Amino acid sequence: MGTHGNLIIGQSGGATAVINASLVGAVEAALQDTRIGQIYGMWHGIQGLLQEDIVDLRGQPAHLWAELMNTPSAALGSCRYKLKDDDLERIIAIFRRYEIHALLYIGGNDSADTVHRIAQAARAAGYDLKAISIPKTIDNDLPLTDHCPGYGSAARFIAMATIDSTMNTLSMPWHYPVKVIETMGRDAGWLTAAATLGKRNESDAPHVLLLPEKTFHAERYLAQVEEAYRRFGYVVVVAAETLRDEQGQALGAVGQVGVDAFQHPLLSGAAQYLVELVKEHLKLRARFDKPGDLQRMASFCVSRVDREEAYLVGQAGTRAALAGETDKMVILQRQEIPQYHCTTGLAELSNVANVQRLMPEDFLDAEGTMVTPAFLNYALPLIGEPLPAYPRLEHTRINKRV
Amino acid sequence: MGTHGNLIIGQSGGATAVINASLVGAVEAALQDTRIGQIYGMWHGIQGLLQEDIVDLRGQPAHLWAELMNTPSAALGSCRYKLKDDDLERIIAIFRRYEIHALLYIGGNDSADTVHRIAQAARAAGYDLKAISIPKTIDNDLPLTDHCPGYGSAARFIAMATIDSTMNTLSMPWHYPVKVIETMGRDAGWLTAAATLGKRNESDAPHVLLLPEKTFHAERYLAQVEEAYRRFGYVVVVAAETLRDEQGQALGAVGQVGVDAFQHPLLSGAAQYLVELVKEHLKLRARFDKPGDLQRMASFCVSRVDREEAYLVGQAGTRAALAGETDKMVILQRQEIPQYHCTTGLAELSNVANVQRLMPEDFLDAEGTMVTPAFLNYALPLIGEPLPAYPRLEHTRINKRV
Repeated sequence: MGTHGNLIIGQSGGATAVINASLVGAVEAALQDTRIGQIYGMWHGIQGLLQEDIVDLRGQPAHLWAELMNTPSAALGSCRYKLKDDDLERIIAIFRRYEIHALLYIGGNDSADTVHRIAQAARAAGYDLKAISIPKTIDNDLPLTDHCPGYGSAARFIAMATIDSTMNTLSMPWHYPVKVIETMGRDAGWLTAAATLGKRNESDAPHVLLLPEKTFHAERYLAQVEEAYRRFGYVVVVAAETLRDEQGQALGAVGQVGVDAFQHPLLSGAAQYLVELVKEHLKLRARFDKPGDLQRMASFCVSRVDREEAYLVGQAGTRAALAGETDKMVILQRQEIPQYHCTTGLAELSNVANVQRLMPEDFLDAEGTMVTPAFLNYALPLIGEPLPAYPRLEHTRINKRV
Repeated sequence: MGTHGNLIIGQSGGATAVINASLVGAVEAALQDTRIGQIYGMWHGIQGLLQEDIVDLRGQPAHLWAELMNTPSAALGSCRYKLKDDDLERIIAIFRRYEIHALLYIGGNDSADTVHRIAQAARAAGYDLKAISIPKTIDNDLPLTDHCPGYGSAARFIAMATIDSTMNTLSMPWHYPVKVIETMGRDAGWLTAAATLGKRNESDAPHVLLLPEKTFHAERYLAQVEEAYRRFGYVVVVAAETLRDEQGQALGAVGQVGVDAFQHPLLSGAAQYLVELVKEHLKLRARFDKPGDLQRMASFCVSRVDREEAYLVGQAGTRAALAGETDKMVILQRQEIPQYHCTTGLAELSNVANVQRLMPEDFLDAEGTMVTPAFLNYALPLIGEPLPAYPRLEHTRINKRV
């Protein structure tokens, strides 16, 4: 056993396309340091830990770590588990038994809270534990870090989906002139806003952006769609699945008034609802794309920058624990000179846990309906290689009319 | 002017990620042949042609053609236009005026019918026209050709979407144990079936395949989902958006019984409906992905084989017209020795137009609920590079329980 005891790593919350890169970064840093004894993994996070579902990571085949760099989802399995008070005592007892003195937990807001509570419990119990949270979320809503690993790849996916799906509309704009694309992102509009990353001028998609930070008003929405249709002949709407109306009700739930032939209530979902509004009130053909889990998982649309940074924060997590840090989250700190890159730092978990970072005001225009150049400057470096700029045929008519 | 007169090319029907490769193949073959005079493009297919919305393709910048090889959607614009009888006379008159003696039209079933009718009209009018249809459809439902350009890329997207989205379910199977992925494909199950291309054993997704060739029975569906859940702990359903029930009614339409707060009817769509059935009757959490237009457009998930073949059929179209062929569709003919590749041939349009090729019986098992190895052998070469085989961590528990 190393001088610093054993280390355990877990993955938590919604998985991403690059969360395994953080696992690999943390494991490889641990493998390289002789002060660490065993390297353990929690199977399905804290929920598995509580059942002592613990695996040996030193014993995994060596080729695995390189392969996991390109494997989406959480290789250790994940969980969404809110700690109960008596869980804390049990976790410390397990750590004691397995001689675990370093905890790395890769996750979002809830996971950061979990780490914070475990760190406090260890301190109160006089147990030596270095507990470090490693950030991960496609929602990009963790505070203090410049951005969250996982966001860059999901943002790239949404930007590409908007560009490519719009190309279909453009081939025959009058066929389905209105398209709605539904994104994830919980209460924050970061992922919805990423749809603008390929927008080069006003006529490019998206034309209407519905962020969860803003209350949904049907009349305003319909007016926006109508105006864009009048100006451009087609409309691409990108909307958060979590939109809420003036009553605070989710848009999907508004449709819960009917029952179908099987007597179960009908839920329309935000995108479906937005499509129906357009069909009914503007009499325009409309349809929607709902990439769903694909936006968090697509291995074929990963941002290289995001993957490298996910590795980096994992590595930094292990190093922080070895340096004696605890009750901290690894953060990304942006350097812009001579060009974009990120270094890692640490933030106090007491300032992180359960704080949601929404889109700041200067990233949105006065009406909150479109992003500003400041947002583009912020987000473009995160999605990796430049987005495609598709060529267009020159539309110059031959004139042989008689 | 070349000895063979002028040539015109159009794109028609639903666009694909590789339909421009067929345009490039046709144009480059024409540019290389001195017998061809002007090379024209129809802006938005036959619909544009009827308005004499015709562009010069020789005059486009030279670098454009290489760039269009990687540009999804129809660069000339597309249309869905059913010819009226007096349109035919007008088209021949336009061809006469523009001295057009070769017509290449890239499209699916309806487009093949359009070309057939124009070829017949030209013959009846004694007008020398070589009219060639170039196949294109993600639905893969054209007869006589081994497969249709556009299908390989859409199939790759659906296969990858199924693999990757399932990875998310696997990270936390109990969170949303049932996932429905909705595919396009019209009346044919080719694209839905492509979801199986990454399936290596029975426990892999998809577990339930709902093809449009089979009438949907809610009870059978729920029994299948329940059994898969019992066996594997989670279920991935892949379903065609065009599913119909015993009454021939589209599943989406079954939900049309409610009205929402705005008094418009609620349509649920196939995937939403399938999710609601599971929630209501099996009391399992379920959600859906609807890739929508992305499955036909995703530039980031193109099959290289598909792109090359799309180019090939375009090139073959120009060559066929120059060789004096008319009223024909280019087809792909599979060679399996020494390994998969395709050559092109020609089929009579009278045998093609408006014939839909559904999934043959030997590609489905006896119940019609899963594909056979024969389907995998057929489809795997079409999607290009091998699909990823993600590694898994070894789940061997450390045992220190006391």
